[in-house]
Amino acid sequence: MTDLLRQRPQATQAMLDNWSDHSLISHALRFESALAQAQAAESIIDQSAANAIAAACDTLQPDPAGLAEQAALAGTLAIPLVEMLRDKVPTAHRPLVHRGATSQDVVDTATMIQVHRGTALLNTDADRVLRALAVLARQYAATPAMGRTLLQDAIPISLGLRIAQWHAGIAGAWADFARYSEKYAVLQFGGAAGTRVGQEGKGSAVAARIAEMLGLPDSAPWHARRCGPAAIGSSLAILVGTVGKMARDISLLSQNGIGEMCEPAIEGRGGSSAMPHKRNPTGSQVALSAALRVPGLAATLISGQPAEQERSIGGWQADGPVLAELFLLASGALSAIADVAEGLQVDLDSVSNALPDGDADLGESADLIETLLGTIEDR
Amino acid sequence: MTDLLRQRPQATQAMLDNWSDHSLISHALRFESALAQAQAAESIIDQSAANAIAAACDTLQPDPAGLAEQAALAGTLAIPLVEMLRDKVPTAHRPLVHRGATSQDVVDTATMIQVHRGTALLNTDADRVLRALAVLARQYAATPAMGRTLLQDAIPISLGLRIAQWHAGIAGAWADFARYSEKYAVLQFGGAAGTRVGQEGKGSAVAARIAEMLGLPDSAPWHARRCGPAAIGSSLAILVGTVGKMARDISLLSQNGIGEMCEPAIEGRGGSSAMPHKRNPTGSQVALSAALRVPGLAATLISGQPAEQERSIGGWQADGPVLAELFLLASGALSAIADVAEGLQVDLDSVSNALPDGDADLGESADLIETLLGTIEDR
Amino acid sequence: MTDLLRQRPQATQAMLDNWSDHSLISHALRFESALAQAQAAESIIDQSAANAIAAACDTLQPDPAGLAEQAALAGTLAIPLVEMLRDKVPTAHRPLVHRGATSQDVVDTATMIQVHRGTALLNTDADRVLRALAVLARQYAATPAMGRTLLQDAIPISLGLRIAQWHAGIAGAWADFARYSEKYAVLQFGGAAGTRVGQEGKGSAVAARIAEMLGLPDSAPWHARRCGPAAIGSSLAILVGTVGKMARDISLLSQNGIGEMCEPAIEGRGGSSAMPHKRNPTGSQVALSAALRVPGLAATLISGQPAEQERSIGGWQADGPVLAELFLLASGALSAIADVAEGLQVDLDSVSNALPDGDADLGESADLIETLLGTIEDR
Amino acid sequence: MTDLLRQRPQATQAMLDNWSDHSLISHALRFESALAQAQAAESIIDQSAANAIAAACDTLQPDPAGLAEQAALAGTLAIPLVEMLRDKVPTAHRPLVHRGATSQDVVDTATMIQVHRGTALLNTDADRVLRALAVLARQYAATPAMGRTLLQDAIPISLGLRIAQWHAGIAGAWADFARYSEKYAVLQFGGAAGTRVGQEGKGSAVAARIAEMLGLPDSAPWHARRCGPAAIGSSLAILVGTVGKMARDISLLSQNGIGEMCEPAIEGRGGSSAMPHKRNPTGSQVALSAALRVPGLAATLISGQPAEQERSIGGWQADGPVLAELFLLASGALSAIADVAEGLQVDLDSVSNALPDGDADLGESADLIETLLGTIEDR
Repeated sequence: MTDLLRQRPQATQAMLDNWSDHSLISHALRFESALAQAQAAESIIDQSAANAIAAACDTLQPDPAGLAEQAALAGTLAIPLVEMLRDKVPTAHRPLVHRGATSQDVVDTATMIQVHRGTALLNTDADRVLRALAVLARQYAATPAMGRTLLQDAIPISLGLRIAQWHAGIAGAWADFARYSEKYAVLQFGGAAGTRVGQEGKGSAVAARIAEMLGLPDSAPWHARRCGPAAIGSSLAILVGTVGKMARDISLLSQNGIGEMCEPAIEGRGGSSAMPHKRNPTGSQVALSAALRVPGLAATLISGQPAEQERSIGGWQADGPVLAELFLLASGALSAIADVAEGLQVDLDSVSNALPDGDADLGESADLIETLLGTIEDR
Repeated sequence: MTDLLRQRPQATQAMLDNWSDHSLISHALRFESALAQAQAAESIIDQSAANAIAAACDTLQPDPAGLAEQAALAGTLAIPLVEMLRDKVPTAHRPLVHRGATSQDVVDTATMIQVHRGTALLNTDADRVLRALAVLARQYAATPAMGRTLLQDAIPISLGLRIAQWHAGIAGAWADFARYSEKYAVLQFGGAAGTRVGQEGKGSAVAARIAEMLGLPDSAPWHARRCGPAAIGSSLAILVGTVGKMARDISLLSQNGIGEMCEPAIEGRGGSSAMPHKRNPTGSQVALSAALRVPGLAATLISGQPAEQERSIGGWQADGPVLAELFLLASGALSAIADVAEGLQVDLDSVSNALPDGDADLGESADLIETLLGTIEDR
Repeated sequence: MTDLLRQRPQATQAMLDNWSDHSLISHALRFESALAQAQAAESIIDQSAANAIAAACDTLQPDPAGLAEQAALAGTLAIPLVEMLRDKVPTAHRPLVHRGATSQDVVDTATMIQVHRGTALLNTDADRVLRALAVLARQYAATPAMGRTLLQDAIPISLGLRIAQWHAGIAGAWADFARYSEKYAVLQFGGAAGTRVGQEGKGSAVAARIAEMLGLPDSAPWHARRCGPAAIGSSLAILVGTVGKMARDISLLSQNGIGEMCEPAIEGRGGSSAMPHKRNPTGSQVALSAALRVPGLAATLISGQPAEQERSIGGWQADGPVLAELFLLASGALSAIADVAEGLQVDLDSVSNALPDGDADLGESADLIETLLGTIEDR
Repeated sequence: MTDLLRQRPQATQAMLDNWSDHSLISHALRFESALAQAQAAESIIDQSAANAIAAACDTLQPDPAGLAEQAALAGTLAIPLVEMLRDKVPTAHRPLVHRGATSQDVVDTATMIQVHRGTALLNTDADRVLRALAVLARQYAATPAMGRTLLQDAIPISLGLRIAQWHAGIAGAWADFARYSEKYAVLQFGGAAGTRVGQEGKGSAVAARIAEMLGLPDSAPWHARRCGPAAIGSSLAILVGTVGKMARDISLLSQNGIGEMCEPAIEGRGGSSAMPHKRNPTGSQVALSAALRVPGLAATLISGQPAEQERSIGGWQADGPVLAELFLLASGALSAIADVAEGLQVDLDSVSNALPDGDADLGESADLIETLLGTIEDR
């Protein structure tokens, strides 16, 4: 049973893969494997136990549907998964599986690996957008276009200035998001109540080793301190909003009677089931739909912060699925708008027709464009 | 590629099925079939064409993944699906497939069938909750318990009164939601711009026939008038909030040191990967997590209302996926809390121990309980 | 110290008055007065005490700033207000002030009086809008105009049909909101923990009397059952969304290069500090800004539902201020759009110019208009 | 007409002053004064004109209520204010008032001065909280306390570790918020469509001078690029969430039957109108109520980003009032929790009673506390 028709139109396949059952299981098992190896390296458990556990993690391939069923019953994925893992290792090593860890260690860490990899996926499309926009902004730096405020014609601007503003918005929001992703997509490892009990006093060394093996920054436990997911999610929502701003403009400038811009013609894109001749700004539609949906998701992550004591009931469990939604929507928006940016069509006649007679005073547009594009250097 | 680990812990399998690719495709094809049959009944197209189209709808089984891919490109599911359908009917009838309809007619109608059926699924669990709570409220009508305000002991109340308040909240919110589901889960049929052009002046008769065949109320087109999804979604979110209220109380009353209530023991439920002895209020966790996530989704549906002219760009496209999320979360919350309600354990010793010495004055709790339970009659 | 520049541009003066300190204090005192009188009528307290309390309520005029300061300290308005009231009555009657009531009884009831009166204020402007739109819809029923989907020209529609859709949206959302306002803007009276202890078994009779005196429907206590504020608030947000839909269309149709509609010219409205010649769609701006702000407020009310036991900590206290914001924003939006509806200018030449050559087929627009306007009868 | 009873319980008086009419008018006039002086310094206008304008700005004291009325009509504060200013300067200089500026330059800049000063106000209380928590965390570093997960007893933790987690949350969120406040609370100066036309090519020099005079960082225009307000607002909401986390714990630990912590006794705070003996966790209530209300406001700021072209209609106009709400709520939450942190009472007997017999293994709590407190150094 799939739900791709609900997910795919707003997400890239690569991002769907990043947040799939397969991905989550594989990262959870990587955590368990790294934990055992780190504990062996710190002489907390025997190397042979660690090897057996790592081998089981490598080969265990649980049926996602069955595991999901058990996870729904248990209230967490980790309990049935650890159980399966224990069944795969020699009896003597079973108690050493998941030693000193807690369910949330597994789930939060796996989620943060997904955040980390999801960020890399988004980076590719963000780069495409920014490169394309920088070229366009400079190409049209001296092209006068009608500036519009409150949806009314105002005074002329440089067409490149409008594009440079899109660039500055996306580049700035990307920088903020990327910073948070790096700062907060970190290891979770604290054990039952966040004290790292049961690591023979070597918990911080174990944590450092796990983090390194998983390619995540190390961190003190943050089970009930959820500003990280909230910061990642809200900065990602803001990024989608900057993409939505560009999409809003393109959809408005594509209107009949204005016609200054047009999304690129892509085979099979932007048709109408009722009007075959019509060309819809479908890339902008995807971005605007994402921009509509992300604010509520960001609000959810912020809402969940007042966690109960050492682990909240219902709060932190929402973070993974909601972060997934945000990354999925962001992937679709950035990918769609990257296609638009790289193939954006400008109709210079329409641009020109909207202007009043006489020379247009573009003010200091040229300088402002360079200032705005400069933001990219900060990335 | 599945994402059940993300979805299933917060949703019932039946509700996941209700919003699956399979369900959406099947409802979309039912729409196309009903459209052709209605048009034949009104002598707009030949009966033989309608039969051919209906037969194609019955047998077409598109690969969801492939269809999702094409839908993502086209910006709507309807374009590739109608294309596939045309390929399945004799050439002469092809132009009659989807005649006078628009993509949004298909998608909105299919979504509303899902809302309609999803409501029936929720009804079963809501009924379980309400029946169980009514019994408990009367059972404990004369049982004094400590009333608590601002998380501090206040004065005694009847234990049944607290439960009757849960009941009144859920029953009242259910009545509001059910009313909206009936009022707004209606046929969408308007054609390219909502005028029902191309139906030879018999559009309203065609609409009435389609509606009847699909088991939905008839309606004037509402492509760009989105108060319906917003009303359904926000009333469903409020319902989940009333379930969350009950869950909040149960989780608080289950605390060690209080211990007045306890979720039923269910094999495999509420364990801890770190502390095998622990029994977590997992049903309440599911409900509270849902209650945390629904407000942002309701806000999204409300946000999308200011649609552009005859069909919005990005707005209405969000309604289906967001309604799906809301129904999924509601299904998990109601199902989990139904199990809790039916097996709720009360520890009368702990209840009693929290009370001050002497007779407790329960005020008019008994009368209030009956008043509050009376709400069920309105259902 | 005022904050009118922040509030007034988005609210009518009448609605600001409705939610002012003066209004809140006066309703709170009316509650205390009605409580004493009801208790006297039921022989719970002496009539002379009731008279003294009622007299004190009539004459007490606390300084709002000072009272706010004390309320901020106490965590509720009711404590200092009841204290002031007690100081105004003869010593013997002091214990009878606020007898058997709790702070939340006062505050919730006062808020619901504000909701009740605020609804009446909104009704006036909603009526203006609906009457004006019904006239316009019929006036332009046979006027072809370009239908637009996804911001692209689609096929012709009746201009009146577009307006009838605005009407149906606002009328339908108004009906839902008005129903909730009537259903949920009710008396709150339950005492310390909602049991109506201390009313000598006549609590329901007292409640009925208070409700009648205050002009609110009677109700069982709902201190911790907050679906009412959530339902009122979300239905009001949806209403604002339907107003935003109309504003979106008017702002789009007012664009240079389209110019099919124009807000009425009102002295001092819609100017620009930089471009004196410009005429901005300021009424639409007010409505769109409100439509942007209401979804988050509705989400807040929904979020607050999972209240702790008999009175929540932080949850219910948010309902009053957030409802106030919603009513204020709705008042501004409806008032602004009523002015627009009553003076809407249509440029038939521009409407006509956007159409393709030849006769426009308006399909069944005429019938649909009447169907859509029929919604008004339900009000 | 005031609305202090609605605002004050959730905000400090100083923060209310910061967002008052008086403050907004004064900052708007400071902008106009600085603009004229900067233009004179760059020889764009005569120094005598600048002096006259500056003098008028110094002495103009418009009636807030009257100005609000005109602003509501005009759709912006700037139009009537500039008009008043022009009336105060000699006729010859009138055209030089507000030269090359637009309404949004005035309003956005004034708002950002309020953000800047509001941040300083918050800083004082954030510092109080962090200092107090750092002391407490170390004081109780070796004190075992019951750790609780999903509201169930788990295993012992160090009491100081719980407090250090509160500290790390607030300190981390403060650092993020402060960074955004510094990055995005910047000058707005772009003129009618953001090109800085009419500054004789010296717009960037003028901007630099204005920024310096106003104590804000300089910036390229950002009229339609609204990631700044969204980032400030969402990071502030996250900060409030971290305060809410601490409040949640304190309110839970203050429950009868647990009693491990207690808010400080403050004369007049935390009483009950129905139960004079009761002591409510009122500081936590204020913080939790704020935490409930901020997510929807953050979502609103994120929602407004897809602005139309060079100035949005309805979007940016929402940013000022919504930022005000966020700062007001944050001020109340931080101030209330600072009082709590500085006077927090721990009942070591209750803490001890909740523990199982025998020595508690606090794991690596001591090291983790120092790691978590280290976060303060980054501030």
